[in-house]
Amino acid sequence: MSNGEAPPRAAFQGEPGAFSTEAARQLLGDKVVLIPCETFDQMFRAAESGEADFCIAPIENSLYGSVYQNYDLLLRHDLRIIGETCLRIVHNLIAPPGTKMDEIRRVYSHPVALGQCLQFFARHPALRAVADVDTAGSVRKVMATREAGAAAIAGSRAAEVYGGEIISAAIEDDHRNYTRFLLLTPAERVVETPSGANKTTIVFSLENRTGSLYRAMAVFALRDIDLSRIESRPIHGRPWEYSFYLDFLGNMAEPRVQNALAHLAEFAAGIRVLGSYRHAPPLPTCPSSAT
Amino acid sequence: MSNGEAPPRAAFQGEPGAFSTEAARQLLGDKVVLIPCETFDQMFRAAESGEADFCIAPIENSLYGSVYQNYDLLLRHDLRIIGETCLRIVHNLIAPPGTKMDEIRRVYSHPVALGQCLQFFARHPALRAVADVDTAGSVRKVMATREAGAAAIAGSRAAEVYGGEIISAAIEDDHRNYTRFLLLTPAERVVETPSGANKTTIVFSLENRTGSLYRAMAVFALRDIDLSRIESRPIHGRPWEYSFYLDFLGNMAEPRVQNALAHLAEFAAGIRVLGSYRHAPPLPTCPSSAT
Repeated sequence: MSNGEAPPRAAFQGEPGAFSTEAARQLLGDKVVLIPCETFDQMFRAAESGEADFCIAPIENSLYGSVYQNYDLLLRHDLRIIGETCLRIVHNLIAPPGTKMDEIRRVYSHPVALGQCLQFFARHPALRAVADVDTAGSVRKVMATREAGAAAIAGSRAAEVYGGEIISAAIEDDHRNYTRFLLLTPAERVVETPSGANKTTIVFSLENRTGSLYRAMAVFALRDIDLSRIESRPIHGRPWEYSFYLDFLGNMAEPRVQNALAHLAEFAAGIRVLGSYRHAPPLPTCPSSAT
Repeated sequence: MSNGEAPPRAAFQGEPGAFSTEAARQLLGDKVVLIPCETFDQMFRAAESGEADFCIAPIENSLYGSVYQNYDLLLRHDLRIIGETCLRIVHNLIAPPGTKMDEIRRVYSHPVALGQCLQFFARHPALRAVADVDTAGSVRKVMATREAGAAAIAGSRAAEVYGGEIISAAIEDDHRNYTRFLLLTPAERVVETPSGANKTTIVFSLENRTGSLYRAMAVFALRDIDLSRIESRPIHGRPWEYSFYLDFLGNMAEPRVQNALAHLAEFAAGIRVLGSYRHAPPLPTCPSSAT
């Protein structure tokens, strides 16, 4: 993405050293300027207002499922998906350099991270898990306060950023823990389909009629377009009606994709193309052609 | 459900007066014995262990979407769905009897409930919202401590249970706020399909093959079986593979339903019938034949 001009600016949710910043580097290179935001909503607004060129939205974790808040924000903001990446989530026990394992008593982190390291806590009964608001932020605090016996759980990047030492690495219970992140930018900046784009995400709603979701899927199946993911979210003010998010393999420049969307428009409402982009590298660990 | 024998015992998550207890009364009658549990997991285990005959699981809210934790628990426990009901979620400002509106300064409730009453707080700038762990529990505390200037936000049932007065009723921003609850009981207690059952929930997983979800839906469409809902959840240990939960209109005694499930078994794995039950009354506000 770097082209000799000003480095790209990317908004993310969390504190410096968060997993989202690793995703940002994978997507935009090491020169990316990272803009921390307290909430996902603030992050979307930072990209929309021009304060940032991009934002980095975690959209799905292989253990916890979709990040529903970001699905909802995609509908409320006019950003486009122009890329995606998958990150393995590795948790580490981090403390000030020189700290010994048997000196540690209190371990701070986000409750989800603590909950992903239960076997580690079972093996070290002297440690007490203490909930904090952020993984990287808990490393920052432990390094700043130098509270005796305190450590934090976060990604390795947080140790680098705040000068902490990894006392115990990869302490998560389940190593098959991945998060998929989307790279978003304001719609008006997307003048053409990104090169190599082979995946598209759309959203639409359907009338409460028999078989309408089946027909929506037939639109793609009849044209040999592979669906890689479907997600539904409730529509506010229309109880028990849903927006459907569909990922499929293909880009908006392909006639069969254009035909499929024209066909879908015959019976679906509010169709929006959220972006065509390059499918994340087909690691064994990343979503490939799925259902 | 009451048949002259011992009253039914239903486990629920939360404190006495919670919205789940209103759902329990709708499903099991006023004689139901309510067993409060701290977590959804404890509630499932209470029903499984025989400590309760039933549990009451919120599964979907019309504003917030699915209660994913309960979808996941349905897979990990051997309970069956034998009924469902929809409840309108009405929030009220509750305080000790005789409290005047202009005496109130601090308003306790669950963060989700506080977030559903933002317009009320905007109209009353003297009030400060304070996050608590539970709606009904915040009423209990306000009544117990008699903290000066304190009130709570919860359902009307919580006011009855703890002797509070509703100072301002129906203060939620969006009145189209409904939650659907499932009535669950241990599988071994379900000897036959409940009378009047016209809806069934199943769960299954699919190979990562082109068109497999489309084929799964065709199984039902080809037999004129209406799907009312589809939900997907990640499978732990198999990144980017999903369990699909399907609600359809029909019961397990119908040959076309049996044929559909036999057809589905030709290519889907781990098919489990979570229960056939009577579809919640088709209020304009409750899910009817949907997608």
